[in-house]
Amino acid sequence: MNRCAIQHIVDSSYCFPVSSNEIVLRLRTAKNDIVRAQVIYESKYVIGESQKCMDMRKAYVGEIFDFYEIKLTLEDTRLAYVFYVNDGEKNYYFSEDGVTENYDFTIGFYNFFQYPYINEADITECVPWMKKAVFYQIFVDRFKMADEKKDRSYINCKWGDLPNAKSFAGGDLKGITEKLDYIKELGCNAIYLTPVFQSISNHKYDISDYYRVDPQFGTNEDLKVLVKTAHKKGIRIVLDAVFNHCSDRMVQFQDVLAKGKESRYFDWFVIKGDSIQKGEINYETFAACAYMPKLNTSNQEVQEYLLDIGTHYLTEYDIDGWRLDVSDEVSHDFWRKFRKRIKNTKKDAVIIGENWHDANNYLRGDQYDSIMNYAFTKVCLDYFATECKSAEQAAWKLNELLMRNTDPVNKMMLNLLDSHDTHRFFKEVGKDRFKMKAALALLFLFPGVPCIFYGTEILTEGGYDPDCRRCMDWEKARPEGEYRDVYELLRILSSLKKDLDISDGTVKIYAESEVLILTNMTGKNEIKLQINNTSKNQMVNSVEMQPYSFSISRNGRMIAHE
Amino acid sequence: MNRCAIQHIVDSSYCFPVSSNEIVLRLRTAKNDIVRAQVIYESKYVIGESQKCMDMRKAYVGEIFDFYEIKLTLEDTRLAYVFYVNDGEKNYYFSEDGVTENYDFTIGFYNFFQYPYINEADITECVPWMKKAVFYQIFVDRFKMADEKKDRSYINCKWGDLPNAKSFAGGDLKGITEKLDYIKELGCNAIYLTPVFQSISNHKYDISDYYRVDPQFGTNEDLKVLVKTAHKKGIRIVLDAVFNHCSDRMVQFQDVLAKGKESRYFDWFVIKGDSIQKGEINYETFAACAYMPKLNTSNQEVQEYLLDIGTHYLTEYDIDGWRLDVSDEVSHDFWRKFRKRIKNTKKDAVIIGENWHDANNYLRGDQYDSIMNYAFTKVCLDYFATECKSAEQAAWKLNELLMRNTDPVNKMMLNLLDSHDTHRFFKEVGKDRFKMKAALALLFLFPGVPCIFYGTEILTEGGYDPDCRRCMDWEKARPEGEYRDVYELLRILSSLKKDLDISDGTVKIYAESEVLILTNMTGKNEIKLQINNTSKNQMVNSVEMQPYSFSISRNGRMIAHE
Repeated sequence: MNRCAIQHIVDSSYCFPVSSNEIVLRLRTAKNDIVRAQVIYESKYVIGESQKCMDMRKAYVGEIFDFYEIKLTLEDTRLAYVFYVNDGEKNYYFSEDGVTENYDFTIGFYNFFQYPYINEADITECVPWMKKAVFYQIFVDRFKMADEKKDRSYINCKWGDLPNAKSFAGGDLKGITEKLDYIKELGCNAIYLTPVFQSISNHKYDISDYYRVDPQFGTNEDLKVLVKTAHKKGIRIVLDAVFNHCSDRMVQFQDVLAKGKESRYFDWFVIKGDSIQKGEINYETFAACAYMPKLNTSNQEVQEYLLDIGTHYLTEYDIDGWRLDVSDEVSHDFWRKFRKRIKNTKKDAVIIGENWHDANNYLRGDQYDSIMNYAFTKVCLDYFATECKSAEQAAWKLNELLMRNTDPVNKMMLNLLDSHDTHRFFKEVGKDRFKMKAALALLFLFPGVPCIFYGTEILTEGGYDPDCRRCMDWEKARPEGEYRDVYELLRILSSLKKDLDISDGTVKIYAESEVLILTNMTGKNEIKLQINNTSKNQMVNSVEMQPYSFSISRNGRMIAHE
Repeated sequence: MNRCAIQHIVDSSYCFPVSSNEIVLRLRTAKNDIVRAQVIYESKYVIGESQKCMDMRKAYVGEIFDFYEIKLTLEDTRLAYVFYVNDGEKNYYFSEDGVTENYDFTIGFYNFFQYPYINEADITECVPWMKKAVFYQIFVDRFKMADEKKDRSYINCKWGDLPNAKSFAGGDLKGITEKLDYIKELGCNAIYLTPVFQSISNHKYDISDYYRVDPQFGTNEDLKVLVKTAHKKGIRIVLDAVFNHCSDRMVQFQDVLAKGKESRYFDWFVIKGDSIQKGEINYETFAACAYMPKLNTSNQEVQEYLLDIGTHYLTEYDIDGWRLDVSDEVSHDFWRKFRKRIKNTKKDAVIIGENWHDANNYLRGDQYDSIMNYAFTKVCLDYFATECKSAEQAAWKLNELLMRNTDPVNKMMLNLLDSHDTHRFFKEVGKDRFKMKAALALLFLFPGVPCIFYGTEILTEGGYDPDCRRCMDWEKARPEGEYRDVYELLRILSSLKKDLDISDGTVKIYAESEVLILTNMTGKNEIKLQINNTSKNQMVNSVEMQPYSFSISRNGRMIAHE
């Protein structure tokens, strides 16, 4: 047995309560290295005298590791436990002291694993509506223009022109309100908008007034109407919170610019020296952008300012949550306060961080609910686009991603194929319709919340920013037009998500021949996705699958395929 | 190379900032499995174009793992990094995607490791005075009686009688105040008292009034005088916070007992049913003790009540911190609030949890500063008492313990050989004076804060509770008496701790022959401890060490030995 591979971490994605008397335990081993894993457990106050024992199931298979899992139902939640594994030759105990051949439970209080007590406050709960959510991400300037009254003089291109970094196309909130039925018919029930607050850029990630909707996008009243109308149609609205940095035009920064150290806002930013110099940037910024000074989120006043914005749009506009821009560069300390404020204001508001990397430390129940799951994006690119990962390798990686976090968090991960910050996925797969649709099927059936970037339904292409932010082509955007098949697929996928309880299903991801397979078992239903992303016929379960094809079945009956 | 062994966890004890521009990185590998470890790093915004590279040193050796370490000084703290290891045959990269033979930095934003930005709020700082602290733990009823005025009718044994579970010997706060000079001369500069608040037991872990010093121990004024006098002598006072549970005599519980669900305190406890039944316990308790009902620390009112107690003794009595009883059964959520309140009230107050197990999740800078390090106790028992661990195995385990937490936390760990909750260590080592003294030397030189249980200096013996809680023998407690050697050793050890900056030294722990060696390198000094806990002569560095002997040297000059 490879003792170096055995891993368990208490109070982590390896050990987490899912209710007041249920806890999930996971154990990692080297792949195919053991024949049996069990957990020996009891209340920590009595485990010295008596123990219970349960078999664990091999639930997830990664590239070099297997992951065993069990959900225990406890009478006394003051849980002590030790693993017991057999490698085909010998039995071993695995405790806080590592792998040993013997274990003395009478002095286990020194080294058993424990989850000391399930405190309700420490249980991570899934935001209920996220279980059935299907997101549509909108880059506002490029989606739809409908505001007749606004000053349109800022618009500098024709709707449909390929955008450059400085293009203003005219999209606005009224346009989104007008298209809510369209979005709903597409199967989406939640919208994430890139920033809408006052800013001179088209993307508006450089905000100069967080309390004012940018006039290009409409009025504050338009935002209220959008949320209200969306809610009536059963659609949630999530806004983009840019708290890591602001615009150099924000009054506070302008004050510092004018007064230097004398400004009462001096400590709102991170400045080397006594004043802001011209020429070389002597203050911290987002990336290396002089026009986006970093906010000092360790400053109490800045914190209060941002927390107030966080709650203001919940109480006054009734939005359903926040996506947090560059959230990984803001402190844990701030996000803990943010979560408390947000959840105390609107319990089921969702908090989604923009963390491209493993964000486990932000997803322990005290900070965000979810992140934009770019690690999922990367697997899809590797499997569908560059094909540098086989079906088997993709399955391993997807399993490994699920092992990064707890189940309640996995159910809320915002999974995506692309966004305003990447190439369009359709471009990445060389405009291959099969690959795009197969990837969408995987997106919707992988645990978590699918999020499609506006225009995905009409196979919008485009490279990196600004090319991925093209104007929505409303000529093409018709469910009965040339993209009927895509609309139809999205409708089927979103209804699986919304009508069945697949979020609570048991998911298995694996490969057979060179076919990627994902199954989701709920009480009554088995949903099965099979993808053959190769140029060859593949045999699955004695049935031949065509090259570059996929199928989705429900209880053995095909419901979508290509 | 054993790929399953390679481990790095971002934003953990494997990766933590120690100042606004310094970060420590650690990498785990299988033991003796690689020949070189490097880290390739740069600001995450430019690592696609250029990278820096540094060698890591093998800093800690465990039973089956090696731990490599490096401290990076950064210009831009938005750190991206990938490890680069050579196993003697081949080079490998190690990123969030695991071990690979190639690595493409231009798409590293998907899978490099990162510490996104060093936010000051997320840097764990060492409580300054803890770096030179030497603790003396006192079980109040058994230390010293001095209060002439109190009603002594509760005392039911003669000072010095072997205690039973119900013994009251008469120790009090005035007795401690009287003995502050004694404690100071012993070399201690901090005292941790078991609970002092109103309670009918001798241990007082069942508190009925948190705002009142128990009359057996004196008055609230006595506590004030104790703290004030101690501070004048440079001694800190840490009290015991019993927040997991209280006494069934507390008025709130009595109210529930009388009124059941109608009581406004009903939700202060965790009760099955509508009222408290006689006979079978239908409410949660500490362990299975009916007289210690568990407090519902998820309840907002309970939280406020306990938080107020937490700050009250800081502001009104000027105590220096809290030791938290059964802290692992109280929620993370509560301890986060507790830390905020405590640190906002008195920045350098220390928070020490009673967690017997790996408490990493409580020691991330948002909850406690430290825990009672019973894992250290266990190594000492295994090495000195049962001898089930060799010097080499003990060294491995001690290194592994250091790898559980970050350096600032390691420097604050409350290391102990015994306490009111264990056998006396002198009993465990079969009253072997050499073993006891060698263990004390290890206790003081291992990273962290040494804590000795009252009477250790006169080699007090005793089994498990109540036997470990014997009355202090003041006849014997004289530096010039039969325990002169122990007093002398403690004086030398505590002056090393207080006069040199050994807390900031670089510690190496290893074995040579069968000798356990610990070295501490600071700027000017090398302190070296060698322990031969075997019945044979052992050769170390070509010098012979006697059976059962130890030595402490400073820059090669012996300063203590046995």
